Amino acid sequence: MTLASREIRLKRRPVGLPKAEDFELASVALAAPQPGQVLVRNHWMSVDPYMRGRMYDRPSYVPPFGLGEALQGGAVGVVEESQSPGFSPGDLVESMFGWREAFVAPAGAVTKLPKTSAPPQAFLGILGMPGMTAYGGLLEIGQPKPGDVVFVSGAAGAVGATVCQIAKIKGCEVIGSVGSDDKAAWLKERGADAAINYKTCGDLATALKAAAPKGIDIYFDNVGGDHLEAALEAARPFARFVECGMISAYNDTTPKPAPRNLIYIVGKSLRMQGFIVTQFMGLKDQFITDMTSWIAEGRLSWQETVVEGVENAPAAFLGLFTGANTGKMLVKLA
Amino acid sequence: MTLASREIRLKRRPVGLPKAEDFELASVALAAPQPGQVLVRNHWMSVDPYMRGRMYDRPSYVPPFGLGEALQGGAVGVVEESQSPGFSPGDLVESMFGWREAFVAPAGAVTKLPKTSAPPQAFLGILGMPGMTAYGGLLEIGQPKPGDVVFVSGAAGAVGATVCQIAKIKGCEVIGSVGSDDKAAWLKERGADAAINYKTCGDLATALKAAAPKGIDIYFDNVGGDHLEAALEAARPFARFVECGMISAYNDTTPKPAPRNLIYIVGKSLRMQGFIVTQFMGLKDQFITDMTSWIAEGRLSWQETVVEGVENAPAAFLGLFTGANTGKMLVKLA
Repeated sequence: MTLASREIRLKRRPVGLPKAEDFELASVALAAPQPGQVLVRNHWMSVDPYMRGRMYDRPSYVPPFGLGEALQGGAVGVVEESQSPGFSPGDLVESMFGWREAFVAPAGAVTKLPKTSAPPQAFLGILGMPGMTAYGGLLEIGQPKPGDVVFVSGAAGAVGATVCQIAKIKGCEVIGSVGSDDKAAWLKERGADAAINYKTCGDLATALKAAAPKGIDIYFDNVGGDHLEAALEAARPFARFVECGMISAYNDTTPKPAPRNLIYIVGKSLRMQGFIVTQFMGLKDQFITDMTSWIAEGRLSWQETVVEGVENAPAAFLGLFTGANTGKMLVKLA
Repeated sequence: MTLASREIRLKRRPVGLPKAEDFELASVALAAPQPGQVLVRNHWMSVDPYMRGRMYDRPSYVPPFGLGEALQGGAVGVVEESQSPGFSPGDLVESMFGWREAFVAPAGAVTKLPKTSAPPQAFLGILGMPGMTAYGGLLEIGQPKPGDVVFVSGAAGAVGATVCQIAKIKGCEVIGSVGSDDKAAWLKERGADAAINYKTCGDLATALKAAAPKGIDIYFDNVGGDHLEAALEAARPFARFVECGMISAYNDTTPKPAPRNLIYIVGKSLRMQGFIVTQFMGLKDQFITDMTSWIAEGRLSWQETVVEGVENAPAAFLGLFTGANTGKMLVKLA
C-alpha cells in the first residue's frame, strides 16, 4: 500500500520578505512503514517566525532548510500504522515533520502527547514550543518580581500573549504592544494594564513613557528595532531584556543599525540576553503542570488563527510578518 | 590659619570632545578643620573616562557635575590636620575630592587606606576603582572558565590591562585590542595571546576572526561601536558581553546607530550586561587579597601615565579620548 502526501518545499531562498513563489507544493508517495517505523497523518502544523532564519543559507544553531526539500516544523498528528511496539494506531503524537500531510519516520522521531483536556493543537502553541518560550524566557531570563513593570512587544502573538498573562499571574504590571485595536482590546480583557497600538500611537518611546511613567523592569522582545530602542529609553536600572526575537529585522536585506541608545546597557546596568527554547527542557514537567493549572483556573487562555490545507501553509507563514495572526498561527491539515 | 588650594572647575558643559576651555583653574582659601573634620593634602588624583558622563546635564546613576564648581573624582592624600578621633596627621586616605590640591571635609567622607607594599597611587588604579571594575566585571559578569577565549577592547587602559591579566590567571586565551604597537608589545609581554592594533589592522572583524578563528566566549567592552560589532560577529553561542564602557560614543553629539548585527543576541543566545562597580563592593576583601597576592607573585602588573600639577588635570582627562595613556592615567599633585 502506498499513500499520497502533499508537502510544501522551499523552491528558492527568499530575499527580503518571503513571497508565495519561494515555495512549491508537491506530492509524494509514502511506502508502508518498515519495522521500527510509524506512519502518521498530521492534523495540525505550526508556522513560526523563527523559520525565516532557516531559509537563509548560513551557519546557525539549526541547519538551513534544503532547497527542493520539504520544510520542517512542529506538527501534531495521529498514528495510522505502527511497526514499533511503543506506538499504536490512534496515538496522538508530535514531531518536527510539519509542512506535509503525512509521513513515515522512525518511532524515535515522534513523541506521544500527554493526555490533557487541552485540544491537540495546543501542543503547537500554549503547551508547546511557543508556550515554553514564553514561560522559560520570562521566568528564567526575565526573573520577574511582584510589582515589576513588564513591557512585551508582539503582545498578541503566540509567545507574547502568553508572556503577558504569566507576568500578570506573577504579580507584575503589564504593558503590551500590538498592531491593531482589536488585539489591544483582547489583551486588556486578558488582564494587561495597558496596550499600545504601535501603528497608531505616534512616537513609540513617548507612548511607552506615558504607559510606564516610572520606567520598565523587564522587556520581552519579539520585535527589535524601534521597540527595542523605546524599551532601552524606558528601562530602569538593572532591567532585564529577554531577547526572544526581532521579527522587524528577519527580512532585512541589509542589516539595520539600531538601536541608537544601546549605551544605556552600560549606564543603566542592563542585562540583555538571548536564549534557545531547548535550554529550558529541564523545566518541561513544571511547565506542563503550571500551564495546565493556570488554564483550568481560567487565568491563562489563548487565541488561534487557523488556515486550512497544506497548500495554504505558505500564506499562513507570510501572514506572520504582516500581523495577520492573533495568537497562534496554525494550519489545519485533517 | 587658612591654606590656599587650587582646583579645577567645570566652566561650561562640553559639546562633543571636551576642550581645555571647558575647564578653569581657581584658587580657594581653606579654613581650619572644625570638630569632626580633617584637612587632607592630595598627593594623587585620578582621571577616568566615566567622568565624561557626569559633564552632561542629564539623569544618571550619579548626579551631573555642577557648573562653576570643582569637579570630583578619586584622590589619594595625607591627613595634615585632624579634628576627628579616627584620623591622625600622616594617615594615608582616599576620597572623592579629586581635582583639587587640598580639602577640608567631614571625617566620614574619607577612608583610611590599608597598609600594603603597593605605592599609594595604586589605590586609584589596580587596587582601586579601575581594578575592582576589571575584577568584578570579568569574574562576576563574564564568568570565565579555563580555555575560554576572551576579547578585551581598550586593552592597554587601566581596566583593560587588568582584565587581560586576570583572564590569563584564570586560564583563558586572551586577545586585546589597543591603539599602538608599543601598547601591543607590552600587552603580549604581560601574557596576552594576541594583540590587535585597531588603528592599523584594517577591518577589525577580519582581524579578530584571524586572532580567534573559533570565536570568542567573553567580550569585555570598554569601547563600543566597531569593536562591539566585531565581537558580536565573533561570538560563540552563549558568549558573555561585559558592558563596562563605550568610550567611542561618550563624545557623540548625535547618537550613533550601532551595531548592525545586534540580532546575534537572539540567534547566538548571548548575554550582554552592564554594571556599576559599586555592586561588587561585597567582594572588596577578596579583591584586595587576590590582587595583592597576584602582584606579589609577579602575575599582575600595571603601567601608569603621570601628568604633574592640578593645572594639567584637564589635559590628562582629554588624553583619555586620544589614547594618550598606557595603563592608568594619573595626576601627581604633591
